[in-house]
Amino acid sequence: MKIVIDGMGGDNAPYSVVEGACMAVNEYGVDIIITGDEKIIKEELNKYDCDKSKIEVVHTTEVITNEEKPVTAIRRKTDSSMVVALKMVKDKKADVVISAGSTGALLSGGVFIIKRIKGISRPCICAGMPTMEGGFTLISDTGANVDCNKQNLVDFARMTDIYAKKVLGIDNPRVALGNIGTEDGKGNALVKEVFDELKGMDGINFIGNMETREILNGVCDIVICDGFIGNIIVKTMEGSVLSLFKKLKEVMTASTKSKIGALLMKGELKKLKELLDYSSYGGAPFLGVDGGVIKAHGSSNAVAIKNAINQGIKFYNGNVLEEIRNFGGLDEQ
Amino acid sequence: MKIVIDGMGGDNAPYSVVEGACMAVNEYGVDIIITGDEKIIKEELNKYDCDKSKIEVVHTTEVITNEEKPVTAIRRKTDSSMVVALKMVKDKKADVVISAGSTGALLSGGVFIIKRIKGISRPCICAGMPTMEGGFTLISDTGANVDCNKQNLVDFARMTDIYAKKVLGIDNPRVALGNIGTEDGKGNALVKEVFDELKGMDGINFIGNMETREILNGVCDIVICDGFIGNIIVKTMEGSVLSLFKKLKEVMTASTKSKIGALLMKGELKKLKELLDYSSYGGAPFLGVDGGVIKAHGSSNAVAIKNAINQGIKFYNGNVLEEIRNFGGLDEQ
Repeated sequence: MKIVIDGMGGDNAPYSVVEGACMAVNEYGVDIIITGDEKIIKEELNKYDCDKSKIEVVHTTEVITNEEKPVTAIRRKTDSSMVVALKMVKDKKADVVISAGSTGALLSGGVFIIKRIKGISRPCICAGMPTMEGGFTLISDTGANVDCNKQNLVDFARMTDIYAKKVLGIDNPRVALGNIGTEDGKGNALVKEVFDELKGMDGINFIGNMETREILNGVCDIVICDGFIGNIIVKTMEGSVLSLFKKLKEVMTASTKSKIGALLMKGELKKLKELLDYSSYGGAPFLGVDGGVIKAHGSSNAVAIKNAINQGIKFYNGNVLEEIRNFGGLDEQ
Repeated sequence: MKIVIDGMGGDNAPYSVVEGACMAVNEYGVDIIITGDEKIIKEELNKYDCDKSKIEVVHTTEVITNEEKPVTAIRRKTDSSMVVALKMVKDKKADVVISAGSTGALLSGGVFIIKRIKGISRPCICAGMPTMEGGFTLISDTGANVDCNKQNLVDFARMTDIYAKKVLGIDNPRVALGNIGTEDGKGNALVKEVFDELKGMDGINFIGNMETREILNGVCDIVICDGFIGNIIVKTMEGSVLSLFKKLKEVMTASTKSKIGALLMKGELKKLKELLDYSSYGGAPFLGVDGGVIKAHGSSNAVAIKNAINQGIKFYNGNVLEEIRNFGGLDEQ
């Protein structure tokens, strides 16, 4: 198996990408292709000690930025590090593509270049939210599909369930429907329809409706929702945690007394902050396209890149694509 | 003007209701009607010192609980403290009704008993979320309408804008559209349609799309969204803050060192917790029905009830209903 990384994507590219790739070669013995500016990438590679025969650099001349319109960028910048990486998966030269670059462009590229798996109504970008217990909860879609129908959400449930089992190693993932109340019959028209479908679905451990206030407490493994709601959940949670930590910092420096108090609690608070650091929870898989696509955080450091590569390895070894193709084929019949 | 309070609604009823009513009489000199069990309420009234001629008790024999189906409860329990209070507003015997009881029943009662204002497509329950700066942001609908169309959201914008001006005294409220990105053109189909409407609307200070992660930072006065999204936002934020405080408590007692640290910071942390206490921010007005309806928190203490009464007074003095009727009438033409 081979993993291709968009060498120029992300805030710290290509530096963290190259460093993370070297770490992954040492740790997992995986074969890696890095796309991007050959000169800079090779210079960076020289800084690290690993089996360089495992890393191939493919030179590209263009870079897609976050400011560009995703679809236009993917169509026009055919020699960009991202498009070339996506094409390698399309052409079976690599099994999984990882990028810390523009999310929009990666999703568009996933659909336009790699293409949807037959029978899957819509692919979804599924991200893990840290919980207070140290684990995390998957949000089925965090922005790929802002307008969904019943079938889309049902497909998200199947795909995230497979991912949780095969990549995260969760035996019997607890699948919940993101809602505004826990009782049956709660929610808007779409959510009510989806509830009935999930309830009757074989092979899924559907535990019912869940209020989003519970997510941080780790009461389920997967929350099913459309990309608009998912994005609202992730950003509201992230914003609340960040704002609260910012305010805590103010509180801690408000008086000499509290400054001393803060100093005494420093170690514990740091642990808590790390626990809730969204960027350390690996990348988000784009499920439903016919190849492995993992979006790493834009601010990924080398360890985050290494973790995303490990995720890619598990994605391949877990046979996730084949599993998704199988049920996609079922729906098609 | 007269305010009627559902004497039996809420976790601390009728005790906090009676105490809060007495406080309000002393502080604002307002006339109040309390519906509920006359014997208990009068006993409670005897405990407090205020001009008792300002408080009328209307005996009722039934109570609506949170467990009952709202519409059924409102239709069947015609001698409940809530239904009798709502009817008083309908019959112009009171101007504003306040209840800390079942939200669902109060909203159903608002629509079925008091009725919608002509020209308003849907009433909304608009709640204030505390911000880190000590103020709060209004969420246009936090659950009354889980499926909305463009006109509903446009009406919410008009009504919350009036409320912010007339009751909260905000000169030129910053109205934002709750969305998953700040750029124009972001969002799902509904939100995109609403964006265009709000942009072209006279008399509204529309500042564009807003990511929900910013709400706690107080970047706008009003967030326009449907009741499903609004409920998700409120509960996610509330859940995040509660979970984080719970975890902080654990962190603080993790070691002797951190226990001492926590002790030194206790005062500051308490202030922060109070700042973010959702229950202290008064009640949520139900805008768009033809009478004042304010939902107080279920856990309201006497001060929260007193604050909700003050809100009711401002609602009446600010001529909110007349203002909403006026633009409702405009749409109707």
